[in-house]
Amino acid sequence: MAKVHNFSAGPSILPQEVLQKASEAILNFDNLNLSLIEISHRSKNFEAVMERARQLVKELMQLPDGYSVLFLQGGASLQFVMVAQNLLREGGKAAYTDTGTWASNAIKEAKLFGQVDVIASSKAQNYTFIPKDYTIPEDADYFHCTSNNTIYGTQMKEFPDSPVPMVCDMSSDIFSRRIDFSKFSLIYAGAQKNMGPAGTTLVVVKDEILGKTGRAIPAMMDYRTHISKDSMYNTPPVFAVYVSMLTLEWLINNGGLAWIEELNRKKAELMYGEIDRNPLFYGTVAKEDRSWMNACFLLHDPKLEPEFDKMWKEAGISGIRGHRSVGGYRASMYNALPLESVQVLVDVMKEFERVKG
Amino acid sequence: MAKVHNFSAGPSILPQEVLQKASEAILNFDNLNLSLIEISHRSKNFEAVMERARQLVKELMQLPDGYSVLFLQGGASLQFVMVAQNLLREGGKAAYTDTGTWASNAIKEAKLFGQVDVIASSKAQNYTFIPKDYTIPEDADYFHCTSNNTIYGTQMKEFPDSPVPMVCDMSSDIFSRRIDFSKFSLIYAGAQKNMGPAGTTLVVVKDEILGKTGRAIPAMMDYRTHISKDSMYNTPPVFAVYVSMLTLEWLINNGGLAWIEELNRKKAELMYGEIDRNPLFYGTVAKEDRSWMNACFLLHDPKLEPEFDKMWKEAGISGIRGHRSVGGYRASMYNALPLESVQVLVDVMKEFERVKG
Ligand SMILES: Cc1ncc(COP(=O)(O)O)c(C=O)c1O
Ligand SMILES: Cc1ncc(COP(=O)(O)O)c(C=O)c1O
Ligand SMILES: [Mg+2]
Ligand SMILES: [Mg+2]
Ligand SMILES: [Mg+2]
Ligand SMILES: [Mg+2]
Repeated sequence: MAKVHNFSAGPSILPQEVLQKASEAILNFDNLNLSLIEISHRSKNFEAVMERARQLVKELMQLPDGYSVLFLQGGASLQFVMVAQNLLREGGKAAYTDTGTWASNAIKEAKLFGQVDVIASSKAQNYTFIPKDYTIPEDADYFHCTSNNTIYGTQMKEFPDSPVPMVCDMSSDIFSRRIDFSKFSLIYAGAQKNMGPAGTTLVVVKDEILGKTGRAIPAMMDYRTHISKDSMYNTPPVFAVYVSMLTLEWLINNGGLAWIEELNRKKAELMYGEIDRNPLFYGTVAKEDRSWMNACFLLHDPKLEPEFDKMWKEAGISGIRGHRSVGGYRASMYNALPLESVQVLVDVMKEFERVKG
Repeated sequence: MAKVHNFSAGPSILPQEVLQKASEAILNFDNLNLSLIEISHRSKNFEAVMERARQLVKELMQLPDGYSVLFLQGGASLQFVMVAQNLLREGGKAAYTDTGTWASNAIKEAKLFGQVDVIASSKAQNYTFIPKDYTIPEDADYFHCTSNNTIYGTQMKEFPDSPVPMVCDMSSDIFSRRIDFSKFSLIYAGAQKNMGPAGTTLVVVKDEILGKTGRAIPAMMDYRTHISKDSMYNTPPVFAVYVSMLTLEWLINNGGLAWIEELNRKKAELMYGEIDRNPLFYGTVAKEDRSWMNACFLLHDPKLEPEFDKMWKEAGISGIRGHRSVGGYRASMYNALPLESVQVLVDVMKEFERVKG
């Protein structure tokens, strides 16, 4: 069968060697003659997987002491709740930036736990840029931001120096570039873009910020419960953690964040270069805020869409239809997407210009 | 390699043909030339999986109209929270039976949302039986029970006629026998015993019991959110749902609940028959409450354990060490465990008697 160029926005492309190993582990894991998914999570074989996955995260993030790494269930959306439940004090307030659909969902969930100040928003401009001119109140319990806005295709290139604990939803650009992770007090990310399959969410949290809300928290919703049990308080999502571990290994073995940053830069430059150059297409967001992960673009003449669609489908491209709230196209170029796939898309755009231009 | 007889208590044995299909789908799903775990959950291919999984549950349970079927994340432990959060009214109370570790955890989580009356408990007798003599208060918001106590090896053979909505944690015996599922207003079960891999939890809920607490519930914790989005409010645990679907298909194709009930009865009779007959071993719980899923037993002489352990390990048996809170042995005989594996264990016990008796 023909190769598919998989630009899916999430769940999304994973390295072929990771898929190969995952497929084998479903039949025979660690030479136990048992499937990965039919052994106890308390077996030494799976405990080693969980430990290694957590260790690889620490290694990639170069975290100082005092942070805990968890692989939880519930998706990034459950973190919208847990963050506020664990950090927003009774009678306290939190500061959020509203930079897209997910940020706005995070704000909605937080409001159930206390006052939420939206200190900056690009909503009125349909989230086409990242606000930069804001002050984080010193009396907020925490500041929450979204590093990459998956649907709108904007990305924070710099992070503020926050006077209060900084929390970041990195679901759609985790481990895509070098960052000073120690600036953050809590980072979370659904695995299903850059890190693995759907079904687990990475949480990295500075222990000292926990336990200060004055609120009774159900054990399952309390980060401290999961920390005290090394991320095995209840049955973890075994398969998703295993595949995440494999993907993190792939990343480190290939050169880590320096390597992937370079590759992601090349892909983004190639993609946006063509969007800008090609007279038929234009990008939807402010240039300085363009996401390296999700490139959103439109045809000047939307009537040409059916013809363009036919052409990229024939080239084996998949998953570039834009989100229903933006329309047009979104090329998601997560870590595992090879430069070659971007080249194929760019070639199709060039060819479309030749035919139509 | 030698066949392994997998008695793991959970995550646990799955049908070989299910593992085979799951392994293939990791490389190429639905002939898309893409992995199951790298396509959008909004693709028609995955939407069909989710729909079919939900449909198979309805079919197996023969549910009347008015129930919704969800595949959520978080494990059964998150249901301990969600049940109370969604059903326990402000100022109301709930009735629970305390029949084991998991029931007791469910009680702990519920207490954060209101009054919890423990109307029956076998705790003082180390959970060795199922209390039957209790009255469910008519003014409770709901009654919660645990159909099978995985750690202690007791199982409810009958369910009360409850004057209030009956909620049941069926994590460790879901789909193991015929039951009048319509007696229940809410059923939940972690997939990782009888239904699939760890990472998804089945919730079956009668719509009319929802929305009555007077409490503001975060969207992610509100069953109504997930119902309104056909169990796709946020990214579902794709792999776990897919493998659950395959396992439910396997069950139905082989004859459904009537077939599996008969097989499980045979396995339990064989196992408990030997525990009773063999003078070296004894069972730990009241005979009428013995679980068909988890048979807990001890050696009269614990000093013989190392020798017995050596013998069953040599026979290719895996996973029969008892839970740390009970000790001894626990043979978990979930749906996918063949009768043959129980026979191998029974033969080892007989042989051990011959050598030691
Ligand atoms: C930035 C961001 N945050 C949160 C989410 C929600 O993640 P989940 O579906 O795992 O709840 C997404 C999903 O695409 C996302 O892109
Ligand atoms: C009856 C029962 N309920 C709840 C649980 C907890 O399930 P989870 O680990 O998915 O939270 C278990 C786990 O074994 C169980 O056996
Ligand atoms: Mg967004
Ligand atoms: Mg252009
Ligand atoms: Mg128990
Ligand atoms: Mg005996």
